[in-house]
Amino acid sequence: MIIIMKSHATKKQIEDVISWVESVGYRAHPSTGVERTIIGAIGDKRDKEILQYAETLPGVEKTMPILKPYKLASHEAHEGNTEVSVGSIKIGGPEFVVIAGPCAIESKEQLLKSARVVKKGGAQVLRGGAYKPRTSPYSFQGMEEDGLKILKQVGMKAKLPTVTEVVSPADVDLVESYADMLQIGARNVQNFPLLKKVGHSRRPVLLKRGMMTTIEELLMSAEYILSEGNPNIVLCERGIRTFETATRNTLDISAVPVLKGLTHLPVIVDPSHAAGDWRYVIPLSRAAIAVGADGIIVEVHPQPEKAFSDGAQSLKPEKFYQLMEELKAITSVMKH
Amino acid sequence: MIIIMKSHATKKQIEDVISWVESVGYRAHPSTGVERTIIGAIGDKRDKEILQYAETLPGVEKTMPILKPYKLASHEAHEGNTEVSVGSIKIGGPEFVVIAGPCAIESKEQLLKSARVVKKGGAQVLRGGAYKPRTSPYSFQGMEEDGLKILKQVGMKAKLPTVTEVVSPADVDLVESYADMLQIGARNVQNFPLLKKVGHSRRPVLLKRGMMTTIEELLMSAEYILSEGNPNIVLCERGIRTFETATRNTLDISAVPVLKGLTHLPVIVDPSHAAGDWRYVIPLSRAAIAVGADGIIVEVHPQPEKAFSDGAQSLKPEKFYQLMEELKAITSVMKH
Amino acid sequence: MIIIMKSHATKKQIEDVISWVESVGYRAHPSTGVERTIIGAIGDKRDKEILQYAETLPGVEKTMPILKPYKLASHEAHEGNTEVSVGSIKIGGPEFVVIAGPCAIESKEQLLKSARVVKKGGAQVLRGGAYKPRTSPYSFQGMEEDGLKILKQVGMKAKLPTVTEVVSPADVDLVESYADMLQIGARNVQNFPLLKKVGHSRRPVLLKRGMMTTIEELLMSAEYILSEGNPNIVLCERGIRTFETATRNTLDISAVPVLKGLTHLPVIVDPSHAAGDWRYVIPLSRAAIAVGADGIIVEVHPQPEKAFSDGAQSLKPEKFYQLMEELKAITSVMKH
Amino acid sequence: MIIIMKSHATKKQIEDVISWVESVGYRAHPSTGVERTIIGAIGDKRDKEILQYAETLPGVEKTMPILKPYKLASHEAHEGNTEVSVGSIKIGGPEFVVIAGPCAIESKEQLLKSARVVKKGGAQVLRGGAYKPRTSPYSFQGMEEDGLKILKQVGMKAKLPTVTEVVSPADVDLVESYADMLQIGARNVQNFPLLKKVGHSRRPVLLKRGMMTTIEELLMSAEYILSEGNPNIVLCERGIRTFETATRNTLDISAVPVLKGLTHLPVIVDPSHAAGDWRYVIPLSRAAIAVGADGIIVEVHPQPEKAFSDGAQSLKPEKFYQLMEELKAITSVMKH
Repeated sequence: MIIIMKSHATKKQIEDVISWVESVGYRAHPSTGVERTIIGAIGDKRDKEILQYAETLPGVEKTMPILKPYKLASHEAHEGNTEVSVGSIKIGGPEFVVIAGPCAIESKEQLLKSARVVKKGGAQVLRGGAYKPRTSPYSFQGMEEDGLKILKQVGMKAKLPTVTEVVSPADVDLVESYADMLQIGARNVQNFPLLKKVGHSRRPVLLKRGMMTTIEELLMSAEYILSEGNPNIVLCERGIRTFETATRNTLDISAVPVLKGLTHLPVIVDPSHAAGDWRYVIPLSRAAIAVGADGIIVEVHPQPEKAFSDGAQSLKPEKFYQLMEELKAITSVMKH
Repeated sequence: MIIIMKSHATKKQIEDVISWVESVGYRAHPSTGVERTIIGAIGDKRDKEILQYAETLPGVEKTMPILKPYKLASHEAHEGNTEVSVGSIKIGGPEFVVIAGPCAIESKEQLLKSARVVKKGGAQVLRGGAYKPRTSPYSFQGMEEDGLKILKQVGMKAKLPTVTEVVSPADVDLVESYADMLQIGARNVQNFPLLKKVGHSRRPVLLKRGMMTTIEELLMSAEYILSEGNPNIVLCERGIRTFETATRNTLDISAVPVLKGLTHLPVIVDPSHAAGDWRYVIPLSRAAIAVGADGIIVEVHPQPEKAFSDGAQSLKPEKFYQLMEELKAITSVMKH
Repeated sequence: MIIIMKSHATKKQIEDVISWVESVGYRAHPSTGVERTIIGAIGDKRDKEILQYAETLPGVEKTMPILKPYKLASHEAHEGNTEVSVGSIKIGGPEFVVIAGPCAIESKEQLLKSARVVKKGGAQVLRGGAYKPRTSPYSFQGMEEDGLKILKQVGMKAKLPTVTEVVSPADVDLVESYADMLQIGARNVQNFPLLKKVGHSRRPVLLKRGMMTTIEELLMSAEYILSEGNPNIVLCERGIRTFETATRNTLDISAVPVLKGLTHLPVIVDPSHAAGDWRYVIPLSRAAIAVGADGIIVEVHPQPEKAFSDGAQSLKPEKFYQLMEELKAITSVMKH
Repeated sequence: MIIIMKSHATKKQIEDVISWVESVGYRAHPSTGVERTIIGAIGDKRDKEILQYAETLPGVEKTMPILKPYKLASHEAHEGNTEVSVGSIKIGGPEFVVIAGPCAIESKEQLLKSARVVKKGGAQVLRGGAYKPRTSPYSFQGMEEDGLKILKQVGMKAKLPTVTEVVSPADVDLVESYADMLQIGARNVQNFPLLKKVGHSRRPVLLKRGMMTTIEELLMSAEYILSEGNPNIVLCERGIRTFETATRNTLDISAVPVLKGLTHLPVIVDPSHAAGDWRYVIPLSRAAIAVGADGIIVEVHPQPEKAFSDGAQSLKPEKFYQLMEELKAITSVMKH
């Protein structure tokens, strides 16, 4: 943390800041320039939150944190890029990975039909929700454990590893006994007890960015999981909330290269939730592969017009096959 | 839900939309105007999500929900305004209620000192966090049950009812055995398992708006708690995330009169978290009372410069006393 | 500007940064700490934009501007607070000033009726638009010079100084020949040719914050006017654009105390445009006076249901009188 | 406009709304359903603003505009897609168009060097600013007419059509005498006098979305130009302002397919201003072509480290050549 004094700060004010820095357990390293004094606060604690108080001390112009607040998620902590295994599939390696399936598991038949489409199109992982965090208590809340059982059966039958969302720490053990990957949804990105719990899981974690989570906060949430011991995290950009209402959220496509510059973890894109409208899913998926994402997660449903949830943003089978063809074409010209 | 057809929609398209509406369990009520056809979809299910799919059907211009998605939280469900009792204090009645105390419980001595300030200033409820949801895993995470014990002891000694945050469904029973009111923090406003759990609590709930939550979503979260059977909810505006960085969040002061128009539940304001800087807490508190809020929740600390968390936004005792004086002056001229 | 090197920056990288700083006309002042080197870039040019490039140089962790980019608008440039005279009225002094009138001037009769209401209610300045910046080319664009003539006549008759918007540099001379104060609207807050032009005017300027303008950018726009020689500026917070759609914009009430801390210029609030709904104008006006604003600007119309523009947010006469009564009550207990 | 009455609206309230609709010049078309009455307000005026007032009438639940507020910009007004000619180049046709050059024209030598790079890389149009809208009055404001002269000379020498920004209605005649295309910058997207003025120009217009502008508002600004008679408009997405600060703005990549669905006008992307950092320009450009944009506009500078403005987001020549190669590869697999 650097504390920058005002140009007309008094000697007394500077001394008071130095005393205070030391009183809260840091070393103060003042540097007197031509125009003003700058005080470095040095210590080995990564949490420098208490130092923010300095901004309200007399004579202080502003403060500036220097260290990135995450460590295990940063490139410094890990050479090269992490590849995360989901069953036999690797996310973050040379292959572009497509995770596909319905928003919610509605029945065995529905998921089987979906899985056949997913497999036929050439996607590598099956998605399907058994616990649905819904804005309304009157909306379909998911099939819960019955859904998990269907997911496992269908995944095995279709030879596709599976990913499904977990919404409560108490459910983690159950969910990981059925699914190959645990998803933390956008609304739970700062559900810290849940993050700590999946940090102890043996399953890889798909961590979605919240709709109002900064990139740095997303990495801090990954840091929670990493610091509990689970190194297998895939980050997912799924749209942020802005003033624009033409799409459900605004896909922050720039987050992909920004994250690639900051972390060794794989980064995928969810164009379905970002757009909220299937008509934009194909172009946004093309943008995702072109910008350098490691994969996408898309919603596919055999009959979107009858889907219990997210029908408007789910691709029909034929549109999904078209998407897969277009992705293959771009893959062929992308450098890795 | 109203489905508005394009002006040049064909008869076939109109018929297809009607068939589809009926196929998903609603009655279709078409109305042919001079320029276009409008189709009402009528049914008794409050969750009309599936109808959103209509927007992607051929010939449809747009769709429009009519019913408010919340019911128990709306004025129609409850005559007059709800008064929520916290110990012997009523929030939502004629009295403006001040909830005050430190961000985190750090020790018995610290909380005792804080409570004396809170009491002396004339505030009615003591706050203090034992479970702290922190962006960084390296930050102080709270004293947990030890903190709860201190809170109970200090509350009884100071004769102040208490409120404290709960962050996990598994902790609700424990927390309600120590505190008079349960707080759901901004990051948990859409933690639905937690909302359902406090919906079964006998304690009143202080529900904070998330920094990413619309007013309608906040009311939907209240609806989760109400629909589980707990009618005692106090809503809290605490700042939303915007592009402006001069304050930590942007206090959405208009949310107070908007909420008053939509719900019978009491509404309070948290100026400390909105601003993130103690220098703005007094003017924002004055704005809160003037705009018609039922109360405020503010952070007070005997020594903000040594606080484990949120020191920069905590009032010192003398500033807190000044705040209470200024609030009293405005109260005296406000109509109820 | 401070340039912070990475902890593992090489000596060569540090030297390269120093050379580059000097090559673009600044003095480099390196300071080698225990963990990293910090380089101050010192020069007398207030525009340090070129230095931002440093952030992309090898070995640089980040850069940080120190000087506030505005000077004339800051407290350092001017002792105490500026009082801006509009006719015989002073904004920024002990008196809370209410500017009121219709959105647009529609006819002499309409403005006369409005002015009588404004005067009777006790407001001090008359507003009315002759040039209307409208999102749609098909909306009423204002009466232009005919409107200005009416404004002048009515202002004189009602003994109220007047403020009206100017939207083009070419119109400034004309508008200042009719009105006592020039308004720069939210959409023109970064219309730099217009700012420069009103910087040469002899009239005071009411400068509205844009709906996506930061507080710092607003002060930079004021700096444009100040640096051209016009010291008489009143800043106006009128709501910013956020994700919340319950109100037209989100009134950033915190901007008032933040601006008071940064500048000597008066600050007023426009609750009508912020809310877009007359039902919130009275509570938001109370919040404005309580938070410490120097005044408000509100829309009043004798017949809002027939207004050419902004009818939904205009107060009827009786509501306006009620507002003025409530403001008087709060004024009586506010300290100055 | 559709006006939806509350389910318990009285007969008197319904009649009052109908009378009011007719009193402001529309025909009222009521339709009484099982649960509530819906009133269509029909008229041939595209500006239905006055009807918004209905939302505040007693018994009204909400109102809903039906017609899109723009007409000439919509697909209904124009079959197929518009191709806009800039010199001999067509934007909006089968060819992906790259507009490139420095942010600001700094000298003839600088622009000549830039133009050689632009030409060698294979871009089709040269950009360069002579009038620079700058947040700070102390920043370089552009070479003005001297810059325009250089732009014309260099464009002719390099055989590249040119585009440059115009910031004031008074400058339009001058600028169009030197440049092949007029740019309206983000800050002027709702500078209506300027839009009207370029609506009379014989030059095509590059209209940038503002950082605060919705997609609908952008189309309304295009409508201003179209309704004055100039049909040659290219729309440009350049990033919107959000809470995320890792990039200067957030590139709203979804705006491209959304706009393609709403308008016949070409749509290009400006990755340089969106990101504010040259390191993200190549991936974002790839995303732009993949999502279906008609072109991009990028900043290229022979020596970004010495640029008068925007150095941090300008590509060096070698990076620009790399970009052009990567775009060619993706072009080869994109369907048109």
